Amino acid sequence: MPLNFGDPVVLLDLKKGRRRNIIIEDKTIKIKGFGVFNPKDFVGKNYGDVIYLGNKPVLLEPPSIVECIRGLRRKAQIIVPKDSGLIALYANIGPGSVVVEGGIGSGGLTIVLANFVRPNGKVISYDINEEFFKIAHYNLRVAGLHEYVEMKLKDIKEGIDESNIDAVVLDIPEPWEVVEHAKESLKSFGHFVAYVPTIEQARRTYLELKNHEFYNLEIVELIMRNILVKPLGTRPNNKVIGHTGYIIVGRKLND
Amino acid sequence: MPLNFGDPVVLLDLKKGRRRNIIIEDKTIKIKGFGVFNPKDFVGKNYGDVIYLGNKPVLLEPPSIVECIRGLRRKAQIIVPKDSGLIALYANIGPGSVVVEGGIGSGGLTIVLANFVRPNGKVISYDINEEFFKIAHYNLRVAGLHEYVEMKLKDIKEGIDESNIDAVVLDIPEPWEVVEHAKESLKSFGHFVAYVPTIEQARRTYLELKNHEFYNLEIVELIMRNILVKPLGTRPNNKVIGHTGYIIVGRKLND
Amino acid sequence: MPLNFGDPVVLLDLKKGRRRNIIIEDKTIKIKGFGVFNPKDFVGKNYGDVIYLGNKPVLLEPPSIVECIRGLRRKAQIIVPKDSGLIALYANIGPGSVVVEGGIGSGGLTIVLANFVRPNGKVISYDINEEFFKIAHYNLRVAGLHEYVEMKLKDIKEGIDESNIDAVVLDIPEPWEVVEHAKESLKSFGHFVAYVPTIEQARRTYLELKNHEFYNLEIVELIMRNILVKPLGTRPNNKVIGHTGYIIVGRKLND
Amino acid sequence: MPLNFGDPVVLLDLKKGRRRNIIIEDKTIKIKGFGVFNPKDFVGKNYGDVIYLGNKPVLLEPPSIVECIRGLRRKAQIIVPKDSGLIALYANIGPGSVVVEGGIGSGGLTIVLANFVRPNGKVISYDINEEFFKIAHYNLRVAGLHEYVEMKLKDIKEGIDESNIDAVVLDIPEPWEVVEHAKESLKSFGHFVAYVPTIEQARRTYLELKNHEFYNLEIVELIMRNILVKPLGTRPNNKVIGHTGYIIVGRKLND
Repeated sequence: MPLNFGDPVVLLDLKKGRRRNIIIEDKTIKIKGFGVFNPKDFVGKNYGDVIYLGNKPVLLEPPSIVECIRGLRRKAQIIVPKDSGLIALYANIGPGSVVVEGGIGSGGLTIVLANFVRPNGKVISYDINEEFFKIAHYNLRVAGLHEYVEMKLKDIKEGIDESNIDAVVLDIPEPWEVVEHAKESLKSFGHFVAYVPTIEQARRTYLELKNHEFYNLEIVELIMRNILVKPLGTRPNNKVIGHTGYIIVGRKLND
Repeated sequence: MPLNFGDPVVLLDLKKGRRRNIIIEDKTIKIKGFGVFNPKDFVGKNYGDVIYLGNKPVLLEPPSIVECIRGLRRKAQIIVPKDSGLIALYANIGPGSVVVEGGIGSGGLTIVLANFVRPNGKVISYDINEEFFKIAHYNLRVAGLHEYVEMKLKDIKEGIDESNIDAVVLDIPEPWEVVEHAKESLKSFGHFVAYVPTIEQARRTYLELKNHEFYNLEIVELIMRNILVKPLGTRPNNKVIGHTGYIIVGRKLND
Repeated sequence: MPLNFGDPVVLLDLKKGRRRNIIIEDKTIKIKGFGVFNPKDFVGKNYGDVIYLGNKPVLLEPPSIVECIRGLRRKAQIIVPKDSGLIALYANIGPGSVVVEGGIGSGGLTIVLANFVRPNGKVISYDINEEFFKIAHYNLRVAGLHEYVEMKLKDIKEGIDESNIDAVVLDIPEPWEVVEHAKESLKSFGHFVAYVPTIEQARRTYLELKNHEFYNLEIVELIMRNILVKPLGTRPNNKVIGHTGYIIVGRKLND
Repeated sequence: MPLNFGDPVVLLDLKKGRRRNIIIEDKTIKIKGFGVFNPKDFVGKNYGDVIYLGNKPVLLEPPSIVECIRGLRRKAQIIVPKDSGLIALYANIGPGSVVVEGGIGSGGLTIVLANFVRPNGKVISYDINEEFFKIAHYNLRVAGLHEYVEMKLKDIKEGIDESNIDAVVLDIPEPWEVVEHAKESLKSFGHFVAYVPTIEQARRTYLELKNHEFYNLEIVELIMRNILVKPLGTRPNNKVIGHTGYIIVGRKLND
């Protein structure tokens, strides 16, 4: 079916591998690496078509979760798939789960959570920065997941409004300040997961979870290697991201 | 609500950290590391209770996805959460997805896939070893996910019966022999993911995907580090699994 | 030339890959993994001969630096080649260097340092545990390097007796307490290197070096992967040491 | 003592951390990142002085092995300290060793080898590209090590002229073609070490060593993480080199 106004597309620069999420509108936009263009020109094209922006071949991709994360409009550091896949497992979410997220950022992790709680679950995202809600909402629309996310302009450190929730997932600088709120709001055997860049934050969060009698405590870090297949041989890529963050996990005991 | 016959439990050895999946039945069993016992004794207990097997304190845990994977009854190497989380993302599955899995093994990856395709999707698992179906079925029952999985005693290398599927996920020694079948059976923009231990298998699968015009090709490997929090300081654990497998991914173009 | 009394040998268990340093003496000894035997039986054999201890084939190896480290008689954790190679470079030692070492342990790092400062340099090793001197001395004799090492029964945190030295290399729990002494004792542009297991120790040492105006400050960690070559393919070993230690480095400015 | 003509200096850009090896001459030069300048202006300055190139503060460093490698004039990929430290250990070199090196490149590994074979050993470096000899010689002069290196314009795959050597160290694309030559030229229990970027090269070299009855065979890879110390916390650097090369090692048995 040909593309029409309102359709989501991930632009994939076939030369440089850059991605960018867009929704087809009649509005000239400028995107770094893709130049200036009006997406209305894509109306009538099909997913899988290659168009040219400047002289760059660009694939019109139907959004997938991973491509959407790579194509995020972004303001802040994002949580990449290697981490969000494990966070989703450690948070033990699935269809029907109610998850409170602290720190929506550009919505990269939110997309993963929202995808997996469908069709009858919900992600409630707290943030103190209204600008992030706009960006995240746009990205969630491209992923077709905005209706599963409720956004709250509130500092999650001041409390969680919901109760009996399945998981609390945090991407904020002081996750330890949310441990007590999480304990109150989680149902029995609910899961707490935080994501932080430094070891001190990880340790402090871990100890706070321990003090509040969470169990199955863990701090883990994933290092990802991309393997390149070349005519002359196979080897890990020498261009990598050396560090993203630590994932801290705990499970609440029964009340 | 007290535990009753038929209820699933993950036994968590609080001293050594071992887990084991069981279903409460009146049947004396012997499990390495847990000794000999009859699970009927757990009837009337509650999740979260600590019982003693021999003189070991054991927590009666309600199954979570990750604990179920750690507690698998197993015959073969299993796919651990760090890898299955990313595989689920790369396969782009979610509620409603129809996934064909090649090689069910002990069902560790199947549990993850089944959890995320609920409530209206399905995992169709091919294997040539009937014994694996029994083990996997048991583990899926503990996870409460067996009804989302259809098992087929067939060599997936001989063909995929289904068509218009969302993803093919393989944990077999020669995934390259399934690439052509996958191409036929996948819907447009469907995803192919394979998991193999050696670099030669990864390369061969990658090249076969390339020959069949899959795109967004990648080989990745995840190295996981567990960080230990000790009174005297924080450091990565020196006991780790040094290698699990390579994940190879490709997306089908439109027909 | 046939082996004789006093000759050093590294025993290499050809089945399990275990190594053990010995000196040929007439003395029945018991070594874990090698059983009970009298090395005088090796007199008249040659390096490269395979002898049997129990029913194990054992190669009589001439010591190399790496084999000596693997064959250490040991009391404590040792510093392995991946780390000692880099420590030697970062300490900028070579023939003629005078190095002060804090914490001799079993002598694994000392062997590396002593090997490289020959023939006219020296390693002065401080330790507070006389037992370590005995073990280290034995290991250094096997390596043929004992004459390049001077042992001092003194807590290096109480001061360094030497001055105008080329490098200070520390394997002790509180290296930050030696930074000031090191600054006094090092010559201009001399090097400070410490090795610690936890991130807190690494950070504290780094900051103390910064406070004392050392420059080219670094904390690094090496992760080593062994690649296995099997008939069916090539892959990283899944048995690895997940963490050894952090290496902290700084160079003194001119006085 | 003030700097004079002919003195070696490593320029250290204090803002960006770039290094560059130079020898003080009266000759205007242009170095990327340092601009255009005449090193004769440094005459009369001292090691440790900070000068300005453009408006950049630059430290005049006395060369150390590691700083020299970082400051290499270079034409090709270089072997970095994490790898060359381990190569030196695995090659079992020390004062007096005679080492044949295949592939001198920019001399980064040569500097390490030459430093450790002093004062009475020697590195004999084969290369087929005369331009590399000039670059390597310049770098070795900065390190003060050129007199320990003999350069041979010859393809090492065609044979090794020397005999009874201690070690063969290779940084060439087909190290397996040198295994037979190495076996002939090495003394008993001498060491073979090769460094290659791809896994196929590593495997092929390993198997060739096995065919020629070398023992203690290994393929290893080192992953280095730099830990950043920031006011807000400590974390691995996200800018890293993801892959350099595999190190393949074998030891010759006695003849």
